Amino acid sequence: MIIAKIIGTVVATVKDPGFDGKKLVLAQAHVLKDGQLVPGQTVLVANDDLGAGEGEFVVLTQGSSARMTPSMKSTSTDAVVIALIDRVDANGQLVFKRS
Amino acid sequence: MIIAKIIGTVVATVKDPGFDGKKLVLAQAHVLKDGQLVPGQTVLVANDDLGAGEGEFVVLTQGSSARMTPSMKSTSTDAVVIALIDRVDANGQLVFKRS
Amino acid sequence: MIIAKIIGTVVATVKDPGFDGKKLVLAQAHVLKDGQLVPGQTVLVANDDLGAGEGEFVVLTQGSSARMTPSMKSTSTDAVVIALIDRVDANGQLVFKRS
Amino acid sequence: MIIAKIIGTVVATVKDPGFDGKKLVLAQAHVLKDGQLVPGQTVLVANDDLGAGEGEFVVLTQGSSARMTPSMKSTSTDAVVIALIDRVDANGQLVFKRS
Amino acid sequence: MIIAKIIGTVVATVKDPGFDGKKLVLAQAHVLKDGQLVPGQTVLVANDDLGAGEGEFVVLTQGSSARMTPSMKSTSTDAVVIALIDRVDANGQLVFKRS
Repeated sequence: MIIAKIIGTVVATVKDPGFDGKKLVLAQAHVLKDGQLVPGQTVLVANDDLGAGEGEFVVLTQGSSARMTPSMKSTSTDAVVIALIDRVDANGQLVFKRS
Repeated sequence: MIIAKIIGTVVATVKDPGFDGKKLVLAQAHVLKDGQLVPGQTVLVANDDLGAGEGEFVVLTQGSSARMTPSMKSTSTDAVVIALIDRVDANGQLVFKRS
Repeated sequence: MIIAKIIGTVVATVKDPGFDGKKLVLAQAHVLKDGQLVPGQTVLVANDDLGAGEGEFVVLTQGSSARMTPSMKSTSTDAVVIALIDRVDANGQLVFKRS
Repeated sequence: MIIAKIIGTVVATVKDPGFDGKKLVLAQAHVLKDGQLVPGQTVLVANDDLGAGEGEFVVLTQGSSARMTPSMKSTSTDAVVIALIDRVDANGQLVFKRS
Repeated sequence: MIIAKIIGTVVATVKDPGFDGKKLVLAQAHVLKDGQLVPGQTVLVANDDLGAGEGEFVVLTQGSSARMTPSMKSTSTDAVVIALIDRVDANGQLVFKRS
């Protein structure tokens, strides 16, 4: 999985019926640099059922695993938020803590 | 999923029978830069059942998830348009709105 | 899927039995640049059941979708030629036409 | 699979129920350079059931294969530690040996 | 699939039970440059049931397709050697021939 920050939303009326009523969020992959989470170049469109708000760090799963999330089994999604991050530690240091 | 712009079409007579009668579009991945959607380096060939026109921004799903779209279950596609984008917001700003 | 050009062949005697009698081709991914298809950096080994000749532009599917092609269901392939390209149009211009 | 070093942990309270009670680790992909394993740019969030400690080199599997690990079948994980590395040899030289 | 050269081995005692008795090799992806196969940046850990020796060029399959190889069906592998390469031709020239 990857760490990403929710940075926005995508709205679409004409879509695959499996996505009806599902929220699509914009999630920017983040990388670890000098002990900080900094924005990476990848921005993905993901489904979110956990209520991630803009600015939140989340864990994203991709590929067929995204469809294992209970509410997504009937969709053709390939990216889903599977956790809202409370805390990240790396190399013995606190990298992120939800405030 | 990724945001892509439909930029063209691919025509093939000799093909896997699962693709008979299916439209193949050229879709250029777009990335978010300085609050704008700009063309990325990746251009994919994708199936489209939603009638995306040239120049339209769409959401593309990839991999096995592409085969979950009802009309694509019998194909060996690995990229399908699953939504025609109406609007994208990022970092509190409007990035794209269908005109 | 991606656009690739068939540039060669790979021969192997010792192999997974699922590949017995299957042709392995070298396929170079191509990207769109200034309205032309130009060679990209990726060269893949793919299965081909459509009779693609050297120099031909094809559409390649990858991953589990490659195994959906009828003749490949019993193989462990992850890349298959699913179409021989006749024509590609992008941004309102002809990019490639089979001669 | 890839070689990665466990460099930290990710904690999340709100998550997909399939991840309840599962440890999430931060794993930095490593690459081989001049006969040494050096940190690559990719940092993944992975599940670990083998008890990998911080600083350990592990083998990570990704994608749907991650769900084949017995304890992960009901989860939507796409990255799992499948081995704790004892030793790596490359090009006739010892690259890493667990101390 | 990709062309890779076997460059080493990975040994692990603590591992997913599906890997008991399975050989793990280090495989360096190779790319085609000026008519030669040259080392690429990616080094993968792969399963090998074909007896590939160090220095041999092989074809690697990745992702769920790796599990289609008969001996790997019960494992969580995502990369398997599916052929030992005898010969590669590209652009009308001999690129590699097993000696």
